[in-house]
Amino acid sequence: MPDSRFFTKSGEFLLSEIASITGATIDLSNDRKFSGVAPLENAGSDEISFLDNIKYLSALEVSKAGACFVREKYAARAPKTMQLLITEEPYYAYAITAQKFYPQENFAAGISPQAQIARSASIGKNVRIDSGAVISENVKIGDGCWIGANTVIDKSVEIGEHTRIGSLCSLSHSIVGNNVIIHRGVHIGQDGFGFAAGKKGITKVPQLGLVIIGNNVEIGSGTCIDRGAGHNTTIGDNSKIDNLVQIGHNVQIGRYTMIAAQTGIAGSTHIGDGVMIGGQAGFSGHTTVGNGAKLAAQSGTMTDIPAGATYGGSPAIPILDWHRQTAMIGKLIKKRN
Amino acid sequence: MPDSRFFTKSGEFLLSEIASITGATIDLSNDRKFSGVAPLENAGSDEISFLDNIKYLSALEVSKAGACFVREKYAARAPKTMQLLITEEPYYAYAITAQKFYPQENFAAGISPQAQIARSASIGKNVRIDSGAVISENVKIGDGCWIGANTVIDKSVEIGEHTRIGSLCSLSHSIVGNNVIIHRGVHIGQDGFGFAAGKKGITKVPQLGLVIIGNNVEIGSGTCIDRGAGHNTTIGDNSKIDNLVQIGHNVQIGRYTMIAAQTGIAGSTHIGDGVMIGGQAGFSGHTTVGNGAKLAAQSGTMTDIPAGATYGGSPAIPILDWHRQTAMIGKLIKKRN
Amino acid sequence: MPDSRFFTKSGEFLLSEIASITGATIDLSNDRKFSGVAPLENAGSDEISFLDNIKYLSALEVSKAGACFVREKYAARAPKTMQLLITEEPYYAYAITAQKFYPQENFAAGISPQAQIARSASIGKNVRIDSGAVISENVKIGDGCWIGANTVIDKSVEIGEHTRIGSLCSLSHSIVGNNVIIHRGVHIGQDGFGFAAGKKGITKVPQLGLVIIGNNVEIGSGTCIDRGAGHNTTIGDNSKIDNLVQIGHNVQIGRYTMIAAQTGIAGSTHIGDGVMIGGQAGFSGHTTVGNGAKLAAQSGTMTDIPAGATYGGSPAIPILDWHRQTAMIGKLIKKRN
Repeated sequence: MPDSRFFTKSGEFLLSEIASITGATIDLSNDRKFSGVAPLENAGSDEISFLDNIKYLSALEVSKAGACFVREKYAARAPKTMQLLITEEPYYAYAITAQKFYPQENFAAGISPQAQIARSASIGKNVRIDSGAVISENVKIGDGCWIGANTVIDKSVEIGEHTRIGSLCSLSHSIVGNNVIIHRGVHIGQDGFGFAAGKKGITKVPQLGLVIIGNNVEIGSGTCIDRGAGHNTTIGDNSKIDNLVQIGHNVQIGRYTMIAAQTGIAGSTHIGDGVMIGGQAGFSGHTTVGNGAKLAAQSGTMTDIPAGATYGGSPAIPILDWHRQTAMIGKLIKKRN
Repeated sequence: MPDSRFFTKSGEFLLSEIASITGATIDLSNDRKFSGVAPLENAGSDEISFLDNIKYLSALEVSKAGACFVREKYAARAPKTMQLLITEEPYYAYAITAQKFYPQENFAAGISPQAQIARSASIGKNVRIDSGAVISENVKIGDGCWIGANTVIDKSVEIGEHTRIGSLCSLSHSIVGNNVIIHRGVHIGQDGFGFAAGKKGITKVPQLGLVIIGNNVEIGSGTCIDRGAGHNTTIGDNSKIDNLVQIGHNVQIGRYTMIAAQTGIAGSTHIGDGVMIGGQAGFSGHTTVGNGAKLAAQSGTMTDIPAGATYGGSPAIPILDWHRQTAMIGKLIKKRN
Repeated sequence: MPDSRFFTKSGEFLLSEIASITGATIDLSNDRKFSGVAPLENAGSDEISFLDNIKYLSALEVSKAGACFVREKYAARAPKTMQLLITEEPYYAYAITAQKFYPQENFAAGISPQAQIARSASIGKNVRIDSGAVISENVKIGDGCWIGANTVIDKSVEIGEHTRIGSLCSLSHSIVGNNVIIHRGVHIGQDGFGFAAGKKGITKVPQLGLVIIGNNVEIGSGTCIDRGAGHNTTIGDNSKIDNLVQIGHNVQIGRYTMIAAQTGIAGSTHIGDGVMIGGQAGFSGHTTVGNGAKLAAQSGTMTDIPAGATYGGSPAIPILDWHRQTAMIGKLIKKRN
């Protein structure tokens, strides 16, 4: 069960309520209250769990969870005493259930006396600004935002409504949408890496674009997003970015795109909608990734990627070719031994 | 046009003035004032653009830019109404022009009452120190420096003149030169990763060197530079380091070396002058990279690299061999299908 | 010699004292005092150095160090005037000696008036809390801890005794052990990257676990450790983590495991005791790495790794196979040229 010192539960709910909000099918003959959610290994008789990755099928078989979201085809593997919530989307249903028990943390509005707010800044209603935060001239912060401790927001930055920015972030040269979550230690809007080499040496290229972040975007800790050099750097609505990701100047990222940790996207790369990017992937600059493409972890993309394609390897090639390559090299090694 | 809320323009300039500072050749029969710079796609009739990467040749052909830096051989591709600034270094000339319209941001000197400055610290003239910054005992900061909000500078650190350190940085055990730009969230001078293993277990090796940073160096957000274990960690004059780079203890980097984002350089590696390093490259420790070498993105260098050589792949090999390898494996896969 | 502005020496010691604490063998006929430690290239006649990596054998031959830790078999290579400390663990012995001359920095206890401490927080004896630090409700900090400037510790976090947390860190949802060193800019306890995709779109999975960090752990600058989704994320006693490492939700890391910089460990990966991980290595989720395994730099682990095995490459394979593969491809390229 989640540790009550850190997580606040909203209440207890009937199995039928959970079935109703998730669309899962239950045996209604034994409706009863549940007190929370937990993983298969830890859940008790009043907790709800889920089986999504079949690696954990054996954990299901011995779980003491009182109820469990499970696909129809694995239902027979559950212990007989377990109440089943049958769904084809067990992880999604679990997420909705966990949100019901543990909704996003509320906060008391209020501006810390230790925050520094410029007089020309415009702060919405029900905003919380924590100790040590620095809000500069002409910044606009919408209603219901939470700005974490020691975060620094430079002049003229605009932040939409109900956006949460963690502690120790810096933002400059940026326009941020509504319902965005920016975790701790994120740096947005600094100069891109722009230098021009000529006969007289290297000179700095002024970085004259912004960072535009859509609605419902989430950005992980330690991630850096450089502002554009000429064009803006843009992150589309509903895209989710993990920790320690590097996004270079002029990069354009579409909507509903997921980017795993430590990925690096070089300048002027365009990434479409619904793209899935594995951890530590890299993209060289000035290329285009089509909608719905998938890139494996540690892949290195140097060319345009067609919409819907799945690529892996460095340099990245179609994933089946990459698997063939790996298998072929493995066989050659064995043959020669 | 750059957003005037974020960027301050110095004025308007005649085409002939721009030609004069960049050495570009123009048709003097139609000299007139220009109001700024913009990318080919966005520029209007009173703005100056540039064509460098020929991927954007089609953008040139339909651009509404009033003037454009372009190489002689592409001049014929420009719209007839566009005024041409002919140069063999269009990107460099654009950079000089953008610097003219948008010079480095000025700042008002002054020490925030919310900054903490040790009495023994020595602060030069015309220095700006922002809210929440912490300047410890015996720190020396030269004239014209700007220390960002919530940045922490530990005891005895010395910073030269006209150096700018962004918000949320930490520096200890460091000597920093003049005209250095350190972006936000950079950590310099912490312990290197030094542990000795013996029969009695693992013990920490005291890290007793410094970090020495030359003049005109630029360091990107989130980058970490560990101090030396015995020798110092050094970054030579005019080298430029991108975001989220890791530089281990005792690393020596020469002058005019460019290091792209997320590169990692393990301890005691020596990198020469004028080296170009792609993103996510890695260097194992105790190796030497010669002057003028080039390392491809995601390369993994495990041996010394000769001066002037270009390497790619992991483990890194001469770039032509790497391209051959990639091509050969591609053919083998096709043959077997 | 370490710069006395930055490093405080505890005193001078007789060669016999150094031999005694390290177990090294010396020629007792010429016992005398030494003033410190230094690398072979820099050490003077009253300083002690070491030879561990035989790459530096030629530096030994011309070193002016007064004394040197060296393995028996290389003793003959040392200059005749150098006093030898013979040991089979020269690096370990050097570390113990450097600790003797330069013990871990002491600090004066005290809470900065510019720190914000919640009334419900419990702060032990002899604790130092620096300017701008924010300590929230119900936080517990044990005796002898040092919390750096502008670090933010969220509600209910517990920190053991004699733990040092650098400046500009954030901690939430965490229990931290004794004698832990957390360097600057580390972020611990933020949401893992958890999203569930369903027919209705993407939804956020509440992250309901903690981060549990054992005793004597060291964590490098810029590293991010996400809290668990259901299970906790755990780091075992005596494990050491370098800079800019990403540790995903539910990851379990054993004891005495060493993780080099920029490594990324995806969610729910289990890593055993005594594992050695090179820089920029990656681990896909839901896999297990056995005790004592070794993973090369830039390796990409996608499957379980047996205890004691050494793997390299991406996808990672047994290291000998990887070396064979590299050699074989090299030969094929040459043959075809």
